[in-house]
Amino acid sequence: MTSVFDHPWLGGLFSDAQGSAIWSPEQQISHLLTFEAAYSRALGIAGKVPSDMAEQAALVIETFEPNLTDLKAGTLQDGLPIPNLVAQIRNAAGKNAAAVHHGATSQDVIDTALVLTLRELTILLDQRLVELTAAMVDLTERFGDRSLMGRTRMQAALPITVSDRIATWMLPLDDHRVRLAQLRPRIERLQLGGPVGNRASMDDLGQVIADDMAARLGLGNPPRAWHATRDNVVEYAGLLSLVTGTLGKMGQDVCLMTQQGIDEITMKGGGSSSAMPHKQNPIMAELLVTLAKFNATQISGMHQALIHEQERSGAAWVLEWMLLPQMAAATARSLAVANKLCVAITNMGNCK
Amino acid sequence: MTSVFDHPWLGGLFSDAQGSAIWSPEQQISHLLTFEAAYSRALGIAGKVPSDMAEQAALVIETFEPNLTDLKAGTLQDGLPIPNLVAQIRNAAGKNAAAVHHGATSQDVIDTALVLTLRELTILLDQRLVELTAAMVDLTERFGDRSLMGRTRMQAALPITVSDRIATWMLPLDDHRVRLAQLRPRIERLQLGGPVGNRASMDDLGQVIADDMAARLGLGNPPRAWHATRDNVVEYAGLLSLVTGTLGKMGQDVCLMTQQGIDEITMKGGGSSSAMPHKQNPIMAELLVTLAKFNATQISGMHQALIHEQERSGAAWVLEWMLLPQMAAATARSLAVANKLCVAITNMGNCK
Amino acid sequence: MTSVFDHPWLGGLFSDAQGSAIWSPEQQISHLLTFEAAYSRALGIAGKVPSDMAEQAALVIETFEPNLTDLKAGTLQDGLPIPNLVAQIRNAAGKNAAAVHHGATSQDVIDTALVLTLRELTILLDQRLVELTAAMVDLTERFGDRSLMGRTRMQAALPITVSDRIATWMLPLDDHRVRLAQLRPRIERLQLGGPVGNRASMDDLGQVIADDMAARLGLGNPPRAWHATRDNVVEYAGLLSLVTGTLGKMGQDVCLMTQQGIDEITMKGGGSSSAMPHKQNPIMAELLVTLAKFNATQISGMHQALIHEQERSGAAWVLEWMLLPQMAAATARSLAVANKLCVAITNMGNCK
Amino acid sequence: MTSVFDHPWLGGLFSDAQGSAIWSPEQQISHLLTFEAAYSRALGIAGKVPSDMAEQAALVIETFEPNLTDLKAGTLQDGLPIPNLVAQIRNAAGKNAAAVHHGATSQDVIDTALVLTLRELTILLDQRLVELTAAMVDLTERFGDRSLMGRTRMQAALPITVSDRIATWMLPLDDHRVRLAQLRPRIERLQLGGPVGNRASMDDLGQVIADDMAARLGLGNPPRAWHATRDNVVEYAGLLSLVTGTLGKMGQDVCLMTQQGIDEITMKGGGSSSAMPHKQNPIMAELLVTLAKFNATQISGMHQALIHEQERSGAAWVLEWMLLPQMAAATARSLAVANKLCVAITNMGNCK
Repeated sequence: MTSVFDHPWLGGLFSDAQGSAIWSPEQQISHLLTFEAAYSRALGIAGKVPSDMAEQAALVIETFEPNLTDLKAGTLQDGLPIPNLVAQIRNAAGKNAAAVHHGATSQDVIDTALVLTLRELTILLDQRLVELTAAMVDLTERFGDRSLMGRTRMQAALPITVSDRIATWMLPLDDHRVRLAQLRPRIERLQLGGPVGNRASMDDLGQVIADDMAARLGLGNPPRAWHATRDNVVEYAGLLSLVTGTLGKMGQDVCLMTQQGIDEITMKGGGSSSAMPHKQNPIMAELLVTLAKFNATQISGMHQALIHEQERSGAAWVLEWMLLPQMAAATARSLAVANKLCVAITNMGNCK
Repeated sequence: MTSVFDHPWLGGLFSDAQGSAIWSPEQQISHLLTFEAAYSRALGIAGKVPSDMAEQAALVIETFEPNLTDLKAGTLQDGLPIPNLVAQIRNAAGKNAAAVHHGATSQDVIDTALVLTLRELTILLDQRLVELTAAMVDLTERFGDRSLMGRTRMQAALPITVSDRIATWMLPLDDHRVRLAQLRPRIERLQLGGPVGNRASMDDLGQVIADDMAARLGLGNPPRAWHATRDNVVEYAGLLSLVTGTLGKMGQDVCLMTQQGIDEITMKGGGSSSAMPHKQNPIMAELLVTLAKFNATQISGMHQALIHEQERSGAAWVLEWMLLPQMAAATARSLAVANKLCVAITNMGNCK
Repeated sequence: MTSVFDHPWLGGLFSDAQGSAIWSPEQQISHLLTFEAAYSRALGIAGKVPSDMAEQAALVIETFEPNLTDLKAGTLQDGLPIPNLVAQIRNAAGKNAAAVHHGATSQDVIDTALVLTLRELTILLDQRLVELTAAMVDLTERFGDRSLMGRTRMQAALPITVSDRIATWMLPLDDHRVRLAQLRPRIERLQLGGPVGNRASMDDLGQVIADDMAARLGLGNPPRAWHATRDNVVEYAGLLSLVTGTLGKMGQDVCLMTQQGIDEITMKGGGSSSAMPHKQNPIMAELLVTLAKFNATQISGMHQALIHEQERSGAAWVLEWMLLPQMAAATARSLAVANKLCVAITNMGNCK
Repeated sequence: MTSVFDHPWLGGLFSDAQGSAIWSPEQQISHLLTFEAAYSRALGIAGKVPSDMAEQAALVIETFEPNLTDLKAGTLQDGLPIPNLVAQIRNAAGKNAAAVHHGATSQDVIDTALVLTLRELTILLDQRLVELTAAMVDLTERFGDRSLMGRTRMQAALPITVSDRIATWMLPLDDHRVRLAQLRPRIERLQLGGPVGNRASMDDLGQVIADDMAARLGLGNPPRAWHATRDNVVEYAGLLSLVTGTLGKMGQDVCLMTQQGIDEITMKGGGSSSAMPHKQNPIMAELLVTLAKFNATQISGMHQALIHEQERSGAAWVLEWMLLPQMAAATARSLAVANKLCVAITNMGNCK
């Protein structure tokens, strides 16, 4: 178990049920099949295969349950799961196999499935940004008028109010929502290009197929594949890290406020120590700092992965697979933790 | 000379005249003074000082030439140049010194000056994105119909056209322009908060002063300082790295196309070798790859710097100073190099 | 499933059986218990508790099987698993509970367990470096005399031999083994400090306890805890990334050699494409590049985590947990893949 | 001026005279010429050219002052300065031009010059590590017995002494010296390979030439070039970041100790504020944190640059040029600042 997010006991600290559900194997399979079913139906609409055959294939796909052992072996063999998945589906589709995947490429499937995942994630993040804002408004209502020493460069400067401090946590949240809204049209795009990205494998029907699929999936329809232009995915990752960075700043502030001698905040439910029962560790606040630094680390690799070679890169694309799901998990967890932290706060301002 | 951008001979490869001008010491001083002059006048408008005194102070500021030796010593002493700069200005302003900087804080000056710098940079980048698109359109017109082997995972896949390949370089450029336009209102914001960010140092006149300054400087006017919420600056840095990443992909493709045995591109003006006069090295294409990886490295530090403590952080803020100007220089240079590379291309497609 | 290393199907590509075994939950529990048992016995040796009681406690610990559900809940509560684990153990130890953990701190346990893990990893890595060297020697014997075009800056330069190329893959391996040997005394160190790192919680017996534990566990015995000085852990991570970087260079070379038009290498067992049955993708070579870039990304976060606050930092320490196991998994996998790749090569040199 | 290290006023905060001298243009030219002179003499020793001619050429080289304007133009043209530098030298050498550079390649010159630079840097760093240890021993003597609240996870834990806290700053310094000593033989290696790294360009005399040069320059003599195997350079960069990380931990601790309410340290010479004359900002301590995060950022790019293609990579190598000198500057500055900070401390322990 190399990942804290899925770890049998560390997962208690790091995992988030809703975030995990979005990236679960079941949901990933579901999105892969959503692509394949839509593609089969679009082949029927475009007249590449008879519409009956297309519909029959799509129905098989929609309820298909892949053999995961085979899928794992196929992924080792081919470097990605789609060739094996398609073989499994075609076998199940029997006489309708010709309506399955022909003309598409593995990256079309995986990237469109990613987009469907990110669409769900966007909804979750936006909702949590709203909830967190509400939690901070509530905090402000409870403690905003209390006095607090303003601190700059770690030094006491001049008195402020608790609402001033909370404002620096809260104000970026609205901008994050604006950013999410602005990048949705750039990320919620059908990926459909065929083997070399130009839809030539679909003869002259690429546009018809793409139009039908995009409408069916509720996605934007760019003129060609974005197999090798990953600025939209990397921009999305950047937003994830902006969010965790904002919350990391909040976490750092809370850690500083909890210090004995500073005593500007009290919380219920802090962590206990194996050696010092008197201590209450600010676990949630520290975790916000950690998750921010984690995403700030990963974002570099995402930008490195912008350099795709030619029509499609294996090396750069696979690097995304290693980084982006973790960034998403960290962000979902960070938002949940920040909200929980706001609720746990029992006093702010001079607490001595 | 630790920086390649300012290096006596390596600067030949890395520096860009227009990009350097934007970040020159002269221009930086000019922006710092622009803030101070606008602030003095706003103090007059708000009635904090007599309007005559304000105007006299502003006139002194506008033509002020700071003693750089003192400024350097002051920066060592105080960790930033503003206390010394303000002392120099007040000395020059004589009896009008009361209209200089009172109520503002160093970060107000430096960040607003940064915003003025970034506004100039945005204009340069946008213009270069337009020019680069035009250069790629021209390339497409010259060679777009030529056949090219489409390559995926470094392997020959299926034939495409040169225009297909160029499309993967060109399509993100429009999105980058959209991103620039969308983030302008988030970054082109007056920084004005006073020592602890809440404008309390300006009594009840903070809003009046800020309104006047924002109008005067053509900047947005947020309700309070963004001293410790750096998501706008980091978002801007992210865009810089998205641009260099797009161009790094182009550079990597060109490097691969130049290989003997592949022979898909020819250029004039390649670099020569000290040992092999027969070689023509794809210097410009390699540089695009290097600059992309450079920015992909720096962006991580920018995200780490989101974690500002309390009202203002010295440590995190100063990290921005170390990273962002270099990212800007790399991006300006990358766009110039990409354009130069397009013009240098003498053949694309099968060139044997 | 956020991690490719543990993923139901992507794990086929990324996971390594031996590497995973070292970091398995079972093995991690085993190492945690190894610490606790050794600590109990050392308490007996030092006379802090009767030696019978110490031995009885140690025997309970050695066969203890923690309730993982409770451990997960405890980790959420406390931010780390040890308080709950110790409570579970003490409950099982009954009247001997006083010989369990008293005077130690959570980080003593977790870090010493980490050191035991890294000792196993070091042995695995060293063995694989030896095996890989042998595989490269074998490659050299098979193809070393063949001619190859030497290429610099992606350009044909002058002819070399296959052995010249392989030498650049092989030569760093010996240095990596030297590095491993040199850092073993710095990383294979007992962590024992008690709550604030100075062993004061063990009265005057800290040295006796530490001496006994270090001898028992075969670890070095520094004068005090290294809770907050993580240079040894980060240095270890650096070596992991040096190894994957070396192999990434090999992978990149192989990818370039496989290009049609270059045709300098052939392999058996390449990956197939869902769209192009004629293609043989260099999956293993690409994976080496990806894993190198992955570790090169993570290493930054490890260095950021050097900044521990005061006697022990939660935020920085937990960041290590998120990064280091993945770096280890990537490195173990990279070495296995490189070896497999060497074996799969069926021809090198001019292969047309 | 994109770099803080060379900046007209920010340089006051960031630059270090001794560190800058090592990387000055004059010193860099000197090292390039040292290589070329040694190479000429070695050509004479090996009998490739008459020994008189070799000596005459070497004498010309040793006092040569290149035209920097031409060198900059040549660097733009060729992507590196050596072709132009060699042309300038040959022109000056006149009839002895045949004894200049023939058989060597640009990277031989630049990398050997880098090694000579790093040797000087190593000596500086080692000396500063010794001095800093002494400064910390002195601090311990002055304040070590004072009581201090031990803090873990930002919370008051149990009392320690000032010497306990200082020990966490000091103990890694010795290990850093050991690391420096251990890596010296790996980095202080002659780079000599000729155009494709195998010394074939020197006929059968490569070994003789290399032996003579290595002895003359006091460098190790590896069996072939390490043009494309950069683990030694990246390992060196890793050590730089370990050092700044150690000092960043000290800086963070000092920042935390200065907080009003904590009051555990006092210093003379803190920075002043433009808005709050009563404040004393811990500029030096913050700078240590910043420099640590800076190097932790850069180290990622150095590891990315391990992936050199084939015999020599332009793109990866040039990335080193952009990163390593800055890391060196940050490290030299960090050690100087840490020393200065120790001297500036006027009280530690409970300072209220």
